[in-house]
Amino acid sequence: MKAVSHNTDYKYRVEVCYTPGQFPLYKQDMGIVVVIDILRATSAMVAAFDHGVKDIIPVATIEEARQYIGRDGYIAAAERNGEIVEGFPVGNSPLAFKAMDLRGKTIVISTTNGTQAINTGREARQLVIGSFLNLTALSNWLLKQDDNILLLCSGWKDKFSLEDSVFAGAVMDRLLESGKFGVEEDSSIASKYLYMAARDNFMSILKAAPRRKRLQQLHLLEDVKFCLTPDQSTAIPILRDGRLVLLDIEP
Amino acid sequence: MKAVSHNTDYKYRVEVCYTPGQFPLYKQDMGIVVVIDILRATSAMVAAFDHGVKDIIPVATIEEARQYIGRDGYIAAAERNGEIVEGFPVGNSPLAFKAMDLRGKTIVISTTNGTQAINTGREARQLVIGSFLNLTALSNWLLKQDDNILLLCSGWKDKFSLEDSVFAGAVMDRLLESGKFGVEEDSSIASKYLYMAARDNFMSILKAAPRRKRLQQLHLLEDVKFCLTPDQSTAIPILRDGRLVLLDIEP
Repeated sequence: MKAVSHNTDYKYRVEVCYTPGQFPLYKQDMGIVVVIDILRATSAMVAAFDHGVKDIIPVATIEEARQYIGRDGYIAAAERNGEIVEGFPVGNSPLAFKAMDLRGKTIVISTTNGTQAINTGREARQLVIGSFLNLTALSNWLLKQDDNILLLCSGWKDKFSLEDSVFAGAVMDRLLESGKFGVEEDSSIASKYLYMAARDNFMSILKAAPRRKRLQQLHLLEDVKFCLTPDQSTAIPILRDGRLVLLDIEP
Repeated sequence: MKAVSHNTDYKYRVEVCYTPGQFPLYKQDMGIVVVIDILRATSAMVAAFDHGVKDIIPVATIEEARQYIGRDGYIAAAERNGEIVEGFPVGNSPLAFKAMDLRGKTIVISTTNGTQAINTGREARQLVIGSFLNLTALSNWLLKQDDNILLLCSGWKDKFSLEDSVFAGAVMDRLLESGKFGVEEDSSIASKYLYMAARDNFMSILKAAPRRKRLQQLHLLEDVKFCLTPDQSTAIPILRDGRLVLLDIEP
Protein backbone atom coordinates (compact mmCIF):
# COMPACT_ATOMS: atom_id res chain seq x y z
CA MET A 1 0.00 0.00 0.00
CA LYS A 2 1.40 3.37 -0.90
CA ALA A 3 1.96 6.00 1.72
CA VAL A 4 -0.57 8.73 2.37
CA SER A 5 0.70 11.84 0.63
CA HIS A 6 0.96 14.91 2.76
CA ASN A 7 0.56 18.44 1.57
CA THR A 8 3.02 20.73 3.23
CA ASP A 9 1.60 24.02 1.96
CA TYR A 10 -2.01 23.54 3.02
CA LYS A 11 -4.09 26.42 4.34
CA TYR A 12 -6.24 24.58 6.88
CA ARG A 13 -6.06 21.41 8.91
CA VAL A 14 -8.46 18.48 8.99
CA GLU A 15 -7.89 16.18 11.96
CA VAL A 16 -9.55 13.19 13.60
CA CYS A 17 -10.37 12.78 17.28
CA TYR A 18 -11.31 9.18 18.11
CA THR A 19 -13.41 9.73 21.22
CA PRO A 20 -15.27 12.55 22.99
CA GLY A 21 -12.98 12.07 26.01
CA GLN A 22 -9.96 13.06 23.91
CA PHE A 23 -11.65 16.18 22.51
CA PRO A 24 -9.78 18.60 24.84
CA LEU A 25 -6.48 17.34 23.38
CA TYR A 26 -7.54 18.00 19.78
CA LYS A 27 -9.93 20.95 19.86
CA GLN A 28 -7.41 23.79 19.74
CA ASP A 29 -7.86 26.04 16.68
CA MET A 30 -10.61 23.80 15.33
CA GLY A 31 -13.43 26.02 14.03
CA ILE A 32 -15.65 23.32 12.56
CA VAL A 33 -16.53 20.11 14.37
CA VAL A 34 -18.10 17.20 12.46
CA VAL A 35 -19.80 14.76 14.84
CA ILE A 36 -19.76 11.14 13.66
CA ASP A 37 -21.74 8.23 15.10
CA ILE A 38 -22.22 5.91 12.15
CA LEU A 39 -24.00 3.18 14.16
CA ARG A 40 -26.44 4.84 14.47
CA ALA A 41 -27.18 8.29 15.88
CA THR A 42 -25.78 10.58 13.20
CA SER A 43 -27.03 8.30 10.41
CA ALA A 44 -30.49 8.49 11.96
CA MET A 45 -30.30 12.29 12.20
CA VAL A 46 -29.44 12.69 8.52
CA ALA A 47 -32.21 10.24 7.59
CA ALA A 48 -34.69 12.20 9.71
CA PHE A 49 -33.91 15.49 7.93
CA ASP A 50 -34.18 13.68 4.64
CA HIS A 51 -37.71 12.72 5.70
CA GLY A 52 -38.85 16.19 6.61
CA VAL A 53 -38.18 16.63 10.30
CA LYS A 54 -38.15 20.33 11.27
CA ASP A 55 -35.37 20.15 13.84
CA ILE A 56 -33.67 17.82 16.33
CA ILE A 57 -32.82 18.62 19.93
CA PRO A 58 -29.98 16.38 21.13
CA VAL A 59 -30.05 15.92 24.90
CA ALA A 60 -27.58 14.19 27.19
CA THR A 61 -29.97 12.41 29.55
CA ILE A 62 -32.92 10.10 29.12
CA GLU A 63 -34.87 12.22 31.63
CA GLU A 64 -34.66 15.32 29.41
CA ALA A 65 -35.94 13.33 26.44
CA ARG A 66 -38.69 11.70 28.50
CA GLN A 67 -40.42 15.04 29.14
CA TYR A 68 -41.34 15.14 25.45
CA ILE A 69 -43.06 11.76 25.26
CA GLY A 70 -46.57 12.30 23.87
CA ARG A 71 -46.19 16.08 23.50
CA ASP A 72 -47.76 17.54 20.39
CA GLY A 73 -45.28 18.25 17.60
CA TYR A 74 -42.48 16.31 19.31
CA ILE A 75 -41.03 12.84 18.92
CA ALA A 76 -39.09 11.66 21.94
CA ALA A 77 -36.30 9.21 21.10
CA ALA A 78 -33.87 7.41 23.40
CA GLU A 79 -31.37 4.62 22.92
CA ARG A 80 -28.94 2.96 25.33
CA ASN A 81 -26.69 0.01 24.41
CA GLY A 82 -28.33 -0.42 21.03
CA GLU A 83 -31.87 -0.76 22.37
CA ILE A 84 -34.86 1.57 22.61
CA VAL A 85 -35.23 2.85 26.17
CA GLU A 86 -38.45 1.59 27.79
CA GLY A 87 -41.36 3.96 27.34
CA PHE A 88 -40.03 5.65 24.21
CA PRO A 89 -41.62 5.16 20.78
CA VAL A 90 -38.24 5.07 18.99
CA GLY A 91 -34.48 4.86 19.65
CA ASN A 92 -31.80 5.71 17.11
CA SER A 93 -32.82 3.54 14.16
CA PRO A 94 -32.74 5.45 10.85
CA LEU A 95 -35.15 2.94 9.33
CA ALA A 96 -37.60 3.48 12.19
CA PHE A 97 -37.38 7.25 11.63
CA LYS A 98 -38.01 6.70 7.93
CA ALA A 99 -41.18 4.78 8.76
CA MET A 100 -42.60 7.68 10.81
CA ASP A 101 -44.32 10.88 9.70
CA LEU A 102 -41.71 13.46 10.68
CA ARG A 103 -42.89 16.44 8.65
CA GLY A 104 -42.79 19.65 10.67
CA LYS A 105 -41.95 17.80 13.87
CA THR A 106 -39.16 18.16 16.44
CA ILE A 107 -37.22 15.08 17.55
CA VAL A 108 -35.76 15.19 21.06
CA ILE A 109 -33.14 12.47 21.25
CA SER A 110 -30.65 10.97 23.71
CA THR A 111 -28.29 8.17 22.67
CA THR A 112 -25.40 6.20 24.20
CA ASN A 113 -22.65 7.94 22.29
CA GLY A 114 -23.75 10.34 19.55
CA THR A 115 -25.63 12.94 21.56
CA GLN A 116 -22.78 12.94 24.11
CA ALA A 117 -20.34 13.78 21.32
CA ILE A 118 -22.58 16.64 20.13
CA ASN A 119 -22.63 17.95 23.67
CA THR A 120 -18.84 17.72 23.83
CA GLY A 121 -18.34 19.72 20.63
CA ARG A 122 -21.13 22.27 21.01
CA GLU A 123 -18.83 25.26 21.61
CA ALA A 124 -17.36 24.98 18.10
CA ARG A 125 -17.97 27.88 15.68
CA GLN A 126 -19.89 25.41 13.53
CA LEU A 127 -20.99 21.88 14.44
CA VAL A 128 -22.34 19.65 11.67
CA ILE A 129 -23.44 16.03 11.50
CA GLY A 130 -21.67 13.43 9.35
CA SER A 131 -22.65 9.95 8.19
CA PHE A 132 -22.17 7.81 5.11
CA LEU A 133 -25.66 8.94 4.06
CA ASN A 134 -24.43 12.51 3.41
CA LEU A 135 -20.74 11.78 2.73
CA THR A 136 -20.43 13.58 -0.61
CA ALA A 137 -22.68 16.53 0.26
CA LEU A 138 -20.86 17.05 3.55
CA SER A 139 -17.39 16.71 2.00
CA ASN A 140 -18.25 19.20 -0.74
CA TRP A 141 -19.52 21.70 1.81
CA LEU A 142 -16.44 21.23 4.01
CA LEU A 143 -14.18 21.81 1.00
CA LYS A 144 -15.68 25.29 0.63
CA GLN A 145 -15.07 26.30 4.25
CA ASP A 146 -12.10 28.43 5.24
CA ASP A 147 -11.48 26.95 8.66
CA ASN A 148 -9.80 24.06 10.45
CA ILE A 149 -11.98 20.97 10.71
CA LEU A 150 -12.09 18.39 13.48
CA LEU A 151 -13.78 15.08 12.71
CA LEU A 152 -15.08 13.99 16.13
CA CYS A 153 -15.86 10.30 16.41
CA SER A 154 -18.46 9.39 19.01
CA GLY A 155 -16.82 6.02 19.63
CA TRP A 156 -18.38 3.44 21.93
CA LYS A 157 -18.51 4.48 25.59
CA ASP A 158 -15.43 6.58 24.96
CA LYS A 159 -13.55 3.76 23.28
CA PHE A 160 -12.28 3.82 19.69
CA SER A 161 -14.87 2.79 17.08
CA LEU A 162 -13.88 1.28 13.75
CA GLU A 163 -16.78 2.52 11.63
CA ASP A 164 -16.54 6.09 12.91
CA SER A 165 -12.83 6.34 12.17
CA VAL A 166 -13.18 4.69 8.76
CA PHE A 167 -15.81 7.30 7.88
CA ALA A 168 -13.51 10.07 9.13
CA GLY A 169 -10.86 8.66 6.77
CA ALA A 170 -13.33 8.82 3.88
CA VAL A 171 -13.99 12.52 4.50
CA MET A 172 -10.28 13.18 4.94
CA ASP A 173 -9.49 11.38 1.69
CA ARG A 174 -11.67 13.88 -0.16
CA LEU A 175 -10.38 16.93 1.69
CA LEU A 176 -6.68 16.12 1.35
CA GLU A 177 -7.01 15.70 -2.41
CA SER A 178 -7.87 19.38 -2.76
CA GLY A 179 -4.52 20.53 -1.41
CA LYS A 180 -6.39 23.11 0.66
CA PHE A 181 -6.35 20.90 3.77
CA GLY A 182 -3.52 19.07 5.50
CA VAL A 183 -2.99 16.91 8.59
CA GLU A 184 -0.67 16.97 11.57
CA GLU A 185 -2.03 14.28 13.88
CA ASP A 186 -1.20 10.58 13.80
CA SER A 187 -4.86 9.77 14.45
CA SER A 188 -5.74 11.49 11.16
CA ILE A 189 -3.15 9.57 9.16
CA ALA A 190 -4.29 6.29 10.70
CA SER A 191 -7.93 7.04 9.80
CA LYS A 192 -6.97 7.52 6.20
CA TYR A 193 -5.14 4.17 6.18
CA LEU A 194 -8.13 2.45 7.78
CA TYR A 195 -10.39 3.91 5.10
CA MET A 196 -7.99 2.76 2.38
CA ALA A 197 -8.02 -0.74 3.87
CA ALA A 198 -11.80 -0.81 4.27
CA ARG A 199 -13.16 0.85 1.17
CA ASP A 200 -13.01 -2.18 -1.10
CA ASN A 201 -14.94 -4.52 1.14
CA PHE A 202 -16.50 -2.33 3.66
CA MET A 203 -19.24 -4.54 5.04
CA SER A 204 -17.00 -7.56 5.52
CA ILE A 205 -14.42 -5.59 7.48
CA LEU A 206 -17.00 -4.02 9.72
CA LYS A 207 -18.85 -7.27 10.16
CA ALA A 208 -15.59 -8.80 11.36
CA ALA A 209 -15.57 -6.45 14.33
CA PRO A 210 -16.98 -8.29 17.33
CA ARG A 211 -18.99 -5.32 18.61
CA ARG A 212 -21.10 -5.35 15.44
CA LYS A 213 -22.18 -8.88 16.30
CA ARG A 214 -24.24 -7.41 19.09
CA LEU A 215 -26.13 -5.32 16.56
CA GLN A 216 -26.69 -8.45 14.52
CA GLN A 217 -28.03 -10.22 17.56
CA LEU A 218 -30.45 -7.34 18.02
CA HIS A 219 -31.66 -7.99 14.45
CA LEU A 220 -30.38 -4.64 13.26
CA LEU A 221 -28.51 -5.85 10.20
CA GLU A 222 -30.83 -3.89 7.86
CA ASP A 223 -30.11 -0.77 9.89
CA VAL A 224 -26.36 -1.42 9.68
CA LYS A 225 -26.49 -1.88 5.90
CA PHE A 226 -28.47 1.35 5.57
CA CYS A 227 -25.98 3.25 7.74
CA LEU A 228 -23.04 2.04 5.62
CA THR A 229 -24.57 2.99 2.26
CA PRO A 230 -23.05 6.28 1.07
CA ASP A 231 -24.74 9.27 -0.55
CA GLN A 232 -28.40 8.61 0.06
CA SER A 233 -28.94 12.22 1.13
CA THR A 234 -27.73 15.79 0.63
CA ALA A 235 -28.96 16.89 4.06
CA ILE A 236 -26.38 18.45 6.38
CA PRO A 237 -27.67 18.99 9.93
CA ILE A 238 -26.03 21.94 11.70
CA LEU A 239 -26.28 22.97 15.36
CA ARG A 240 -27.90 26.37 15.95
CA ASP A 241 -28.83 27.47 19.50
CA GLY A 242 -28.88 23.91 20.79
CA ARG A 243 -30.98 22.54 17.91
CA LEU A 244 -29.94 20.71 14.80
CA VAL A 245 -31.47 22.30 11.73
CA LEU A 246 -31.04 21.70 8.03
CA LEU A 247 -28.12 23.65 6.60
CA ASP A 248 -29.20 25.75 3.64
CA ILE A 249 -26.57 24.93 1.03
CA GLU A 250 -26.27 26.58 -2.34
CA PRO A 251 -26.96 24.19 -5.20
CA MET B 1 -7.20 -6.09 1.49
CA LYS B 2 -8.68 -9.15 3.08
CA ALA B 3 -10.48 -8.89 6.34
CA VAL B 4 -8.80 -9.77 9.62
CA SER B 5 -9.90 -13.23 10.59
CA HIS B 6 -11.32 -13.59 14.04
CA ASN B 7 -11.12 -16.66 16.17
CA THR B 8 -14.30 -17.25 18.04
CA ASP B 9 -13.08 -20.07 20.26
CA TYR B 10 -9.98 -18.40 21.66
CA LYS B 11 -8.91 -18.90 25.28
CA TYR B 12 -7.47 -15.46 26.02
CA ARG B 13 -7.79 -11.95 24.70
CA VAL B 14 -5.10 -9.65 23.31
CA GLU B 15 -6.24 -6.04 23.06
CA VAL B 16 -4.76 -2.64 22.25
CA CYS B 17 -5.13 0.55 24.30
CA TYR B 18 -3.95 3.60 22.34
CA THR B 19 -3.10 5.93 25.19
CA PRO B 20 -2.39 5.79 28.94
CA GLY B 21 -5.43 8.02 29.53
CA GLN B 22 -7.73 5.34 28.12
CA PHE B 23 -6.18 2.57 30.25
CA PRO B 24 -9.05 2.52 32.79
CA LEU B 25 -11.46 1.68 29.92
CA TYR B 26 -9.41 -1.29 28.74
CA LYS B 27 -7.66 -2.71 31.81
CA GLN B 28 -10.43 -5.00 33.07
CA ASP B 29 -9.37 -8.69 33.19
CA MET B 30 -6.01 -7.86 31.62
CA GLY B 31 -3.33 -9.79 33.49
CA ILE B 32 -0.34 -8.88 31.33
CA VAL B 33 0.41 -5.33 30.20
CA VAL B 34 2.96 -4.70 27.45
CA VAL B 35 4.15 -1.07 27.49
CA ILE B 36 5.06 0.31 24.06
CA ASP B 37 6.90 3.55 23.32
CA ILE B 38 8.67 2.85 20.06
CA LEU B 39 10.12 6.39 19.69
CA ARG B 40 12.04 5.98 21.91
CA ALA B 41 11.71 4.97 25.57
CA THR B 42 10.91 1.27 25.34
CA SER B 43 13.35 0.79 22.45
CA ALA B 44 16.04 2.40 24.59
CA MET B 45 15.17 0.13 27.54
CA VAL B 46 15.52 -3.03 25.48
CA ALA B 47 18.79 -1.74 24.00
CA ALA B 48 20.10 -1.00 27.49
CA PHE B 49 19.42 -4.55 28.71
CA ASP B 50 21.06 -5.85 25.57
CA HIS B 51 24.13 -3.89 26.59
CA GLY B 52 24.37 -5.21 30.11
CA VAL B 53 22.46 -2.80 32.30
CA LYS B 54 21.56 -4.41 35.63
CA ASP B 55 18.14 -2.78 36.05
CA ILE B 56 16.11 0.31 35.15
CA ILE B 57 14.02 2.40 37.51
CA PRO B 58 11.33 4.28 35.57
CA VAL B 59 10.25 7.45 37.39
CA ALA B 60 7.47 9.89 36.55
CA THR B 61 9.24 13.17 37.33
CA ILE B 62 12.50 14.78 36.29
CA GLU B 63 13.16 15.65 39.94
CA GLU B 64 13.18 11.99 40.96
CA ALA B 65 15.67 11.17 38.21
CA ARG B 66 17.82 14.20 39.03
CA GLN B 67 18.68 12.83 42.47
CA TYR B 68 20.73 10.12 40.79
CA ILE B 69 22.95 12.38 38.66
CA GLY B 70 26.57 11.55 39.42
CA ARG B 71 25.74 8.80 41.95
CA ASP B 72 28.00 5.79 41.81
CA GLY B 73 26.47 2.83 39.97
CA TYR B 74 23.60 4.90 38.56
CA ILE B 75 22.93 6.57 35.23
CA ALA B 76 20.33 9.32 35.41
CA ALA B 77 18.38 9.79 32.17
CA ALA B 78 15.65 12.29 31.32
CA GLU B 79 13.90 13.30 28.13
CA ARG B 80 11.13 15.79 27.43
CA ASN B 81 9.79 16.62 23.96
CA GLY B 82 12.50 14.58 22.25
CA GLU B 83 15.41 16.36 23.89
CA ILE B 84 17.76 15.54 26.77
CA VAL B 85 16.73 17.47 29.87
CA GLU B 86 19.42 19.99 30.87
CA GLY B 87 21.90 18.64 33.38
CA PHE B 88 21.40 14.98 32.44
CA PRO B 89 24.07 12.93 30.65
CA VAL B 90 21.51 11.10 28.47
CA GLY B 91 17.84 11.15 27.47
CA ASN B 92 16.02 8.25 25.81
CA SER B 93 18.28 7.56 22.83
CA PRO B 94 18.98 3.84 22.37
CA LEU B 95 22.11 4.65 20.39
CA ALA B 96 23.37 6.87 23.21
CA PHE B 97 22.77 4.02 25.68
CA LYS B 98 24.65 1.66 23.37
CA ALA B 99 27.64 4.01 23.42
CA MET B 100 27.84 3.96 27.25
CA ASP B 101 29.29 1.36 29.59
CA LEU B 102 26.14 0.07 31.27
CA ARG B 103 27.42 -3.19 32.76
CA GLY B 104 26.17 -3.72 36.29
CA LYS B 105 24.65 -0.24 36.42
CA THR B 106 21.15 1.03 37.26
CA ILE B 107 19.47 3.52 34.92
CA VAL B 108 16.95 5.89 36.51
CA ILE B 109 14.86 7.34 33.69
CA SER B 110 11.98 9.76 33.15
CA THR B 111 10.56 10.37 29.67
CA THR B 112 7.68 12.33 28.10
CA ASN B 113 5.45 9.34 27.46
CA GLY B 114 7.00 5.93 28.09
CA THR B 115 7.69 6.11 31.80
CA GLN B 116 4.21 7.59 32.31
CA ALA B 117 2.71 4.56 30.58
CA ILE B 118 4.73 2.20 32.80
CA ASN B 119 3.42 4.06 35.82
CA THR B 120 -0.14 3.73 34.50
CA GLY B 121 0.13 -0.04 34.04
CA ARG B 122 2.19 -0.91 37.08
CA GLU B 123 -0.62 -2.72 38.94
CA ALA B 124 -0.80 -5.43 36.28
CA ARG B 125 0.07 -9.00 37.29
CA GLN B 126 2.97 -8.79 34.84
CA LEU B 127 4.26 -5.69 33.03
CA VAL B 128 6.77 -6.17 30.23
CA ILE B 129 8.44 -3.84 27.74
CA GLY B 130 7.88 -4.10 23.98
CA SER B 131 9.72 -2.63 21.01
CA PHE B 132 10.62 -3.68 17.49
CA LEU B 133 14.03 -4.63 18.88
CA ASN B 134 12.55 -7.57 20.81
CA LEU B 135 9.42 -8.21 18.68
CA THR B 136 9.95 -11.94 18.06
CA ALA B 137 11.31 -12.77 21.51
CA LEU B 138 8.45 -10.91 23.18
CA SER B 139 5.78 -12.42 20.92
CA ASN B 140 7.08 -15.94 21.53
CA TRP B 141 7.04 -15.38 25.29
CA LEU B 142 3.53 -13.91 25.17
CA LEU B 143 2.31 -16.90 23.18
CA LYS B 144 3.28 -19.16 26.10
CA GLN B 145 1.36 -17.15 28.70
CA ASP B 146 -2.07 -18.21 29.91
CA ASP B 147 -3.53 -14.79 30.54
CA ASN B 148 -5.23 -11.86 28.80
CA ILE B 149 -2.77 -9.37 27.31
CA LEU B 150 -3.17 -5.61 26.95
CA LEU B 151 -0.82 -3.84 24.56
CA LEU B 152 -0.55 -0.37 26.09
CA CYS B 153 0.67 2.31 23.71
CA SER B 154 2.39 5.28 25.34
CA GLY B 155 1.19 7.62 22.60
CA TRP B 156 2.29 11.24 22.47
CA LYS B 157 1.07 13.36 25.38
CA ASP B 158 -1.93 11.08 25.59
CA LYS B 159 -2.71 11.30 21.87
CA PHE B 160 -2.72 8.34 19.49
CA SER B 161 0.70 7.42 18.07
CA LEU B 162 1.09 5.68 14.72
CA GLU B 163 4.30 3.76 15.41
CA ASP B 164 3.09 2.44 18.76
CA SER B 165 -0.17 1.13 17.33
CA VAL B 166 1.53 -0.37 14.26
CA PHE B 167 3.86 -2.26 16.60
CA ALA B 168 0.87 -3.43 18.65
CA GLY B 169 -0.60 -4.72 15.39
CA ALA B 170 2.61 -6.64 14.68
CA VAL B 171 2.45 -8.42 18.05
CA MET B 172 -1.26 -9.07 17.59
CA ASP B 173 -0.66 -10.53 14.13
CA ARG B 174 1.59 -13.19 15.69
CA LEU B 175 -0.70 -13.89 18.64
CA LEU B 176 -3.91 -14.22 16.62
CA GLU B 177 -2.32 -16.76 14.29
CA SER B 178 -1.97 -19.21 17.15
CA GLY B 179 -5.72 -19.45 17.71
CA LYS B 180 -5.06 -19.23 21.44
CA PHE B 181 -5.77 -15.49 21.49
CA GLY B 182 -8.67 -13.45 20.15
CA VAL B 183 -9.82 -9.82 20.11
CA GLU B 184 -12.98 -7.96 21.09
CA GLU B 185 -12.04 -4.30 20.80
CA ASP B 186 -12.19 -2.14 17.67
CA SER B 187 -8.85 -0.57 18.61
CA SER B 188 -7.25 -4.00 18.36
CA ILE B 189 -8.72 -4.71 14.93
CA ALA B 190 -7.63 -1.30 13.67
CA SER B 191 -4.07 -1.87 14.92
CA LYS B 192 -3.88 -5.06 12.94
CA TYR B 193 -5.04 -3.25 9.79
CA LEU B 194 -2.51 -0.48 10.38
CA TYR B 195 0.24 -3.07 10.70
CA MET B 196 -0.93 -4.79 7.50
CA ALA B 197 -0.83 -1.43 5.70
CA ALA B 198 2.57 -0.48 7.10
CA ARG B 199 4.59 -3.67 7.04
CA ASP B 200 5.68 -3.50 3.43
CA ASN B 201 7.11 0.00 3.55
CA PHE B 202 7.40 0.77 7.14
CA MET B 203 9.85 3.66 7.12
CA SER B 204 8.08 5.58 4.37
CA ILE B 205 4.74 5.42 6.13
CA LEU B 206 6.16 6.51 9.44
CA LYS B 207 8.25 9.22 7.80
CA ALA B 208 5.05 10.58 6.26
CA ALA B 209 3.72 11.33 9.71
CA PRO B 210 4.34 14.99 10.49
CA ARG B 211 5.32 14.42 14.09
CA ARG B 212 8.34 12.37 12.98
CA LYS B 213 9.62 15.43 11.15
CA ARG B 214 10.40 16.94 14.52
CA LEU B 215 12.66 13.98 15.30
CA GLN B 216 14.35 14.50 11.95
CA GLN B 217 14.90 18.14 12.78
CA LEU B 218 16.53 17.03 16.01
CA HIS B 219 18.93 14.91 13.89
CA LEU B 220 17.59 11.71 15.33
CA LEU B 221 17.04 9.84 12.08
CA GLU B 222 19.64 7.20 12.99
CA ASP B 223 17.83 6.65 16.28
CA VAL B 224 14.51 6.31 14.43
CA LYS B 225 15.92 3.75 12.00
CA PHE B 226 17.36 1.77 14.90
CA CYS B 227 14.04 1.82 16.77
CA LEU B 228 12.18 0.52 13.70
CA THR B 229 14.55 -2.40 13.01
CA PRO B 230 13.01 -5.62 14.34
CA ASP B 231 14.62 -8.47 16.23
CA GLN B 232 17.95 -7.04 17.27
CA SER B 233 17.53 -8.42 20.78
CA THR B 234 16.02 -11.24 22.81
CA ALA B 235 15.86 -9.14 25.98
CA ILE B 236 12.45 -8.78 27.64
CA PRO B 237 12.41 -6.24 30.48
CA ILE B 238 9.85 -7.01 33.18
CA LEU B 239 8.74 -4.86 36.11
CA ARG B 240 9.51 -6.31 39.56
CA ASP B 241 9.05 -4.16 42.66
CA GLY B 242 9.24 -0.91 40.71
CA ARG B 243 12.34 -1.89 38.75
CA LEU B 244 12.68 -3.26 35.26
CA VAL B 245 14.86 -6.35 35.23
CA LEU B 246 15.76 -8.85 32.55
CA LEU B 247 13.18 -11.64 32.27
CA ASP B 248 14.84 -15.04 32.54
CA ILE B 249 13.38 -16.93 29.59
CA GLU B 250 13.92 -20.57 28.81
CA PRO B 251 15.85 -21.09 25.60
